[in-house]
This record gives sequence, structure tokens and C-alpha cells, in this order.
Amino acid sequence: MKLLFLIVSMYLLGQNEGNPLSNKPRTFDNIKREIADYSDVAKKIINLAVYGKAQNRSYERLALFVDTIGPRLSGSKSLDLAIQYMYEALKKDGLENVHLEQVKIPHWERGEESAIMVQPRNHSLAILGLGGSIATPPEGITAEILVVTSFNELHQRAQEAQGKIVVYNQRYTNYGETVLYRSQGAVEAAKVGAKAALVKSIAPFSINSPHTGIQSYAIDIPKIPVACVSVEDAELMARMSSRGTKVVVSLKMGAQTYPDADSFNTVAEIVGSKYPEQVVLVSGHLDSWDVGQGAMDDGGGAFVSWEALSLIKDLGLRPKRTLRLVLWTGEEQGGVGAEQYYKLHKVNISNFDIVMESDEGTFMPSGLAFTGSDKARRIMKEIMKLLKPINITDVFENGEGTDISYWMQAGIPGASLHDDITKYFWFHHSQGDTMTVQNPREMNLCAAVWTVACYVIADMEEKLPV
Amino acid sequence: MKLLFLIVSMYLLGQNEGNPLSNKPRTFDNIKREIADYSDVAKKIINLAVYGKAQNRSYERLALFVDTIGPRLSGSKSLDLAIQYMYEALKKDGLENVHLEQVKIPHWERGEESAIMVQPRNHSLAILGLGGSIATPPEGITAEILVVTSFNELHQRAQEAQGKIVVYNQRYTNYGETVLYRSQGAVEAAKVGAKAALVKSIAPFSINSPHTGIQSYAIDIPKIPVACVSVEDAELMARMSSRGTKVVVSLKMGAQTYPDADSFNTVAEIVGSKYPEQVVLVSGHLDSWDVGQGAMDDGGGAFVSWEALSLIKDLGLRPKRTLRLVLWTGEEQGGVGAEQYYKLHKVNISNFDIVMESDEGTFMPSGLAFTGSDKARRIMKEIMKLLKPINITDVFENGEGTDISYWMQAGIPGASLHDDITKYFWFHHSQGDTMTVQNPREMNLCAAVWTVACYVIADMEEKLPV
Repeated sequence: MKLLFLIVSMYLLGQNEGNPLSNKPRTFDNIKREIADYSDVAKKIINLAVYGKAQNRSYERLALFVDTIGPRLSGSKSLDLAIQYMYEALKKDGLENVHLEQVKIPHWERGEESAIMVQPRNHSLAILGLGGSIATPPEGITAEILVVTSFNELHQRAQEAQGKIVVYNQRYTNYGETVLYRSQGAVEAAKVGAKAALVKSIAPFSINSPHTGIQSYAIDIPKIPVACVSVEDAELMARMSSRGTKVVVSLKMGAQTYPDADSFNTVAEIVGSKYPEQVVLVSGHLDSWDVGQGAMDDGGGAFVSWEALSLIKDLGLRPKRTLRLVLWTGEEQGGVGAEQYYKLHKVNISNFDIVMESDEGTFMPSGLAFTGSDKARRIMKEIMKLLKPINITDVFENGEGTDISYWMQAGIPGASLHDDITKYFWFHHSQGDTMTVQNPREMNLCAAVWTVACYVIADMEEKLPV
Repeated sequence: MKLLFLIVSMYLLGQNEGNPLSNKPRTFDNIKREIADYSDVAKKIINLAVYGKAQNRSYERLALFVDTIGPRLSGSKSLDLAIQYMYEALKKDGLENVHLEQVKIPHWERGEESAIMVQPRNHSLAILGLGGSIATPPEGITAEILVVTSFNELHQRAQEAQGKIVVYNQRYTNYGETVLYRSQGAVEAAKVGAKAALVKSIAPFSINSPHTGIQSYAIDIPKIPVACVSVEDAELMARMSSRGTKVVVSLKMGAQTYPDADSFNTVAEIVGSKYPEQVVLVSGHLDSWDVGQGAMDDGGGAFVSWEALSLIKDLGLRPKRTLRLVLWTGEEQGGVGAEQYYKLHKVNISNFDIVMESDEGTFMPSGLAFTGSDKARRIMKEIMKLLKPINITDVFENGEGTDISYWMQAGIPGASLHDDITKYFWFHHSQGDTMTVQNPREMNLCAAVWTVACYVIADMEEKLPV
């Protein structure tokens, strides 16, 4: 009887731990039980993050960071300062293998810029040059505008565009769709002979707030200066034009692109106890645009990711796999730091369990968005049940994040924080992206979700199935 | 039989028309019936305003006006242009007795202004000088800041304020309460020896948007420069200070006050058919702050008031009393145009039936706010039932409006448009006060409510009881 019990126990134990000697694949019930066993750990994490000593820590850390450093544009001195600051902070926090991985990133500066409507009356337009834009000549570009509501209309009215400043007054549908006017607006306007382009800010709501962001030129298409203009000013010019009024704008931009700058992805770890070579990557990006404080995009994501490692360390936990925090550089320029990281580390891709990035706000969380196989998704749903004490248990489709997309495209499971983004694009890339939009309690909850998820994935006996 | 019928009929007719020969006061039932008889007229007004040819007219007129003129600060050339524009527009619209009534109004200009946080790091603060503020010396005022959250805290820390720039980081409760920090902030800071004051903008929501407004100095208290700062920047400085960081700000303001300027209240009428000397006054103010377009404050109010007279004229109606449209000047400086109007016209106060002003937005309306006797309120409630076809029938307490307050204080019934002001103070006195916040359908509904109310009051046999 006793012997039988021992044999059965060892068998079950072997199953539960995914004993590599056992060829039998574990049943989903085994996995469910393994995950359910983390409920005490999950409660400890939640209690520490939301109610305990670590309460509001990610918010306070973020506030000190962004208040001290300010915005952190790719290639800027303040981004260098930010990386140095975080390197010191992560070491001081007692994390392991804190190091910087060098990458080259774009260095563009907006310089002085202005846009004045000089006809039919003088009115200063609220603009922000778009990342990568060339400058105007020093005397500016003064030209009549052509307002269009779509690329289609621009093409239909191509004959009218020659020598004009094209103003895009597109309708905002959603960010992914509408942002094409920002990223492609200059190229499309240049194709039809425009001298410059002004793009209505990619935002569903505005208090005359312009929103910047990256844009691209195309080979063989002349480069023309491009800026975004507030929703209000785009609509003003559209109304005037629709009445047949001739509108003339004088645009001056002192933007400059310098040689690529040295920068760094900032890395820290909690080294795995059993499979240290295997990696659960949690991340956010350190760089921001040069307006506001970059507190939301992506200070919040970077700091709840740091918080995940801090909480796990504070609880004296060490998962079987290595938990790796990466604070990306050059994300706003198209995931430049992350792309170089992928090229350098993809040789070890089989060791990557999951890549996680929070880069869509740390507002009230509702769960995780996940990209991966159906089998992996079932496991993620079990893991998220551990968040029942704070009722944030949903698993959504499509894990997102510029910086983790390289890995996800290569088949590695990916997850992002899913939160209430109702106001996200109100502040995004604008002067309104400051600590004022962050909420300590919401950040606590984000940290709890993020930490439980990455810890359990890192500690489970088996990697997520791909 | 026939004679008796005639006698009874004449008796009832006499009652209904409030025959002055009949000494018997009319019963409330008589009045109710009189009002109910306007239901066809009310429907005609509603149909014309909301569904018919006049649909969107007040919006389109307002857009053309604010796009053409821009903001209209007291004492500015653009306010002069605005008054001239409206004088012509009202005449062209075929209204009667279109004329201007001269008044003197303040003439203050903000000039160039900036505030740079120079310590602990360089950061440009989003500010707007407050109306009436003096300038700084040309080299600016560079001083350490003292952040307080209330006048109480300022008084408790009076010893620390000497030579500093006081930053008010008060909590926003409601406009009426919180605005005291804007209007009295300079005086209170000067009393404790501060060199200047920065007031957190009086707004419950912000995208780094500063909000201006009037402020007052006091006799025997030194005048110091005062500006509002965005919610975000006030909170930034508060967080820094709370960490013990020394914060130094360099404030430059080129504001100037000039001699009072000539301006005008703009007046137009539909002269009453039976009691032309009696007046139902509908109004909004034409002046605005020097930011945004003054489309909401108070373009919308002025233009739905104009729309009321246009609709009545278009329907070929002529009420018994005179409907008088007044577009006030100098409201933002404390109701200066309205005060002079009151002084000039109060001799005829007994002829004023009701004073109406729309100056809290023309968003989705829910009814009227009314100040007057209980008897008058009962009548207003009956009148508002005529708006049943669009379900906007409520009568709220406390009719409001700086410009009509002089009359209401003297006992004349007053009414204001009651609408959804959820976002009103998000835009108020900021660059965000533009046509973008206005909605043509909401303006149609506001115009319908406003027109039915003022027409019926002007056409009823008896004035509202005081």
C-alpha cells in the first residue's frame, strides 16, 4: 500500500514537473493543476503590489524619473541621461546582470518651428513637426493650401496640389488606420507636387493640442517638410477652404537630422533557478517624443515592467527561467533598438518562452492581450484566473508592441497589457503626456497583472507551447 | 339664448386676453390654457429650427463669424470688427432697430509672455497671463517658487513667501469655488510679499492647456504679475517641491493696460405689436478672451440668441411685446457693457418682462434655468411643456448670466439656457474654445428652446409676475 502510494506519487510528481524522462505529454488537467498551485504566490504578489509596501511604488518611481529627466527623444542628451539613470536605479534595486546593450538610433531634432496663417487673416497654427521631417528653407514656405479629406481626394485633385501646402483633414476612425496620414502624408503630397504637408493630428479629441510622431520618406520621391496641426486648426482651414476662401500659410521648420547616435537597450534580470538560459522577457520603452514627459508613452509600461522584477525580488522568489527586463531605446523611430536586439539575440530564439511589452498605457487594466497558439492561449487563460482577487482575468486577442513584434513574427508567444485606452490617444505624442494622466492605483493593478503573468510563465515546468 | 352666449363668450374672451377693464385676476388655469394654445406655434418654431430650412443656420453663421474674426478681446481691433460685422449681419437679416449703444470697456493686451523653469532643469511652462495683470520687468522675474494648495496654506507659510513666486496648486472642486484662486491669487500672494503668482488653470481636465480669465488687484496691495499655468505644470512643480527640490522659475510678461476703449453693445429688435415699450431681452456676449475662437464662450450663446429673432421673423410672427436682442461687449472684464446698459436703461425697468442670456455653452440642452417668483416659475414650467416634441422641458433653479445679473438683482425674472456642461470648463478661456467643440444639431435644439421660450413670454397677454 505504502509502496504503491509512493509510486503513484512519484508518477504524478513527474507529470507535474514535466519530468523530461517521462515521454508522456502532460494533460491539460495537469497543467491546470500546476497553475492553480500558484494561487498563493499570486495572492502574495497582488497584496504586495496593490495593498502592501510596494503600493504606488511604480507611480512614485515613474514620477521621480520623468520629473527629473523630462521627455527623452531618440538621439537626445536626455535619453542618454535616462538610460544612465535607469542603469543606476536597477543596480540599486538589487537586480542581476544589469547591463546596457549598445545600439545605433536616429538623431532628429525639431528646432524652431511655426506655422502662421497669413491669409485671410493672421492666425498662429498649433503645430508639431513630424519626426524625421526635413526643414523648410530659413525664410519658410509660404503657399496657398489645398485641403483634402483623404488620399483619394488628393489623387483626384492632383492638378490643384502643385506648389501648394497640402492639409490633410482626414476623419479619425482608429489610430491604426488614421496614422497613415501622418506616416505617408508627406510622400503622397510630394508625389503631386506639393511644397509641404500639414496633417490633422491623429487624435480623437483635442484641446488645440498637436500630436507628433514618426513619418517616412520614400526613395525617389522628393522630401518635403511635414508637420501635424491641431484638429481645430485643420478644421478651421477646411471650413475656410470649403467656403472658397483662399488660405495662405507660412510654415517655418528648423528640423535637422544628425548622424545616428549611440544608445542602449537597458537590461536587468532575475536569473532563473533551473533553466537560466531560458527567458521570459518583460519590457517597455525608455525613449519618448520630445513633448510632455513621456509618462504614458511609455514611462508607465517601462516602470510596471521594472516593478514586476522588483516585486518578485522583494518576495524572495526566483522563477525557474530567467526573467529579463528590457527597456528599449529608439522605439518611437520604428522599434530601432528592439530590431537590433532581435538581430543580436535571435540565435537563441529557442530559449525565448514569451516576449511581453506594455506600450499602450497603464490605465485601468482588464487583462492581457496574447498572441500565440491555441494551446498556449488556454494556458494563458488559466494563468489569468490567478488574478481573480482583483477581477482582472481576461485574455484578449493580438498581443501588441512594436518592440516585441520581431519575436512574435518569428513565432514566439507575445503578450501586452490590456487596459482602458479610452483617453490614450488624447494624450499620445502630445504635451499632454505627463504624470497627470497616470494614476497610482491603476499602475498598482497593472503591475499585479504583469507580475503574476510573467512570474508564473517563468516558473512553470514547461515553456509555453508554440 | 344667443345673447347669453355672446355675453358669456365676451366674458371669457376678456379673461383670456387679460382685459385691463376686467379687475378679476386670471386664474392659473386660464394662463395654462393661454400657454397651451401656443403649441402649434411652438411646433412651427421647432420644425423650422431643428428639421427645416433654418437647420444648422446658427452653427453656420457662428462658424463664418468666428473663422472670419477670430477671438475678440475687450478693447481689441477684432472686437471692433466683430461688432461692425454683427451690425451689418443683423441689418441684412431684416431685424428692426439695429443699433449700437456706446460703452467704455477695458483695454488690456497680454503681449509676449513666457515662463521657464530654470531649476532643477530647463522646462518651458504652459502659461497664459491673466486679464488685467501687470507686466514683469523686461528682464523678467526669476525666483524660487513656493507651492501651496490653498489660501490657508499660503497664510500659514506666509514667512516663506517673501520674494518668491507663489504657485497655487489648488484642487478643482467646481468653477465658482475654484475660480477664486484665479481672481484673488495675485492679491493674496502680494500680501505675503511674493513677487509674482502662477495659478493652476481653473479646469477639471487638461491636455497641458492653460486657461486665462480676469483677475483683480486690490487697493493698497502691491500689484504683482499673475498668470495661469497648465494643470500639468502646476502638478509638476508641486511634486518637485514636495520632494524638497528647489524650483526656480523665470517669468516674463509683456502685458499692458491701455486707457478704456470705446465699444458697443449691439442691439436688434422685433418690435412688439401691442406693447412695444415692453421688452423681452435675449442675449449673449460678443467679446471673448484672446485665445481660441470664443466659439463656445460666448459665440454659441450670442448666435442662438440671434437665431431666436431670425426664426420668429422667418415665421412671420410678431409678438405683442418687443423682443430685443443684445450682444454684450466687455463681459469677460466683469460684465462691463451690461453694467452700463443697466445704468442707462433701468429707468424703464418696469417695462422689462424677462432678461435671458445664454453664456454657459450651447451643448445638448436640457431646459432653462430660471430666477423669479414661484408664480412666474409655474408659468415657465407651462411654457417649457411646449418643448415636449423635442423632450427638453425642464425648468431648473438659478438663471445665470453675468450680463443679466444686474436686472435679476433688481427683481426682473431671468433665464439662461441649461445644457450639458460636462466639457464646458475643459475648453473655457483656452485655445480649445473653437468651432470644433460646437455641434450644429445641439445648437438647433438650443435655438428651438430659446426661441419658443422668448416668443411665448413676449406674446402672452400679461408680463411674468415678479
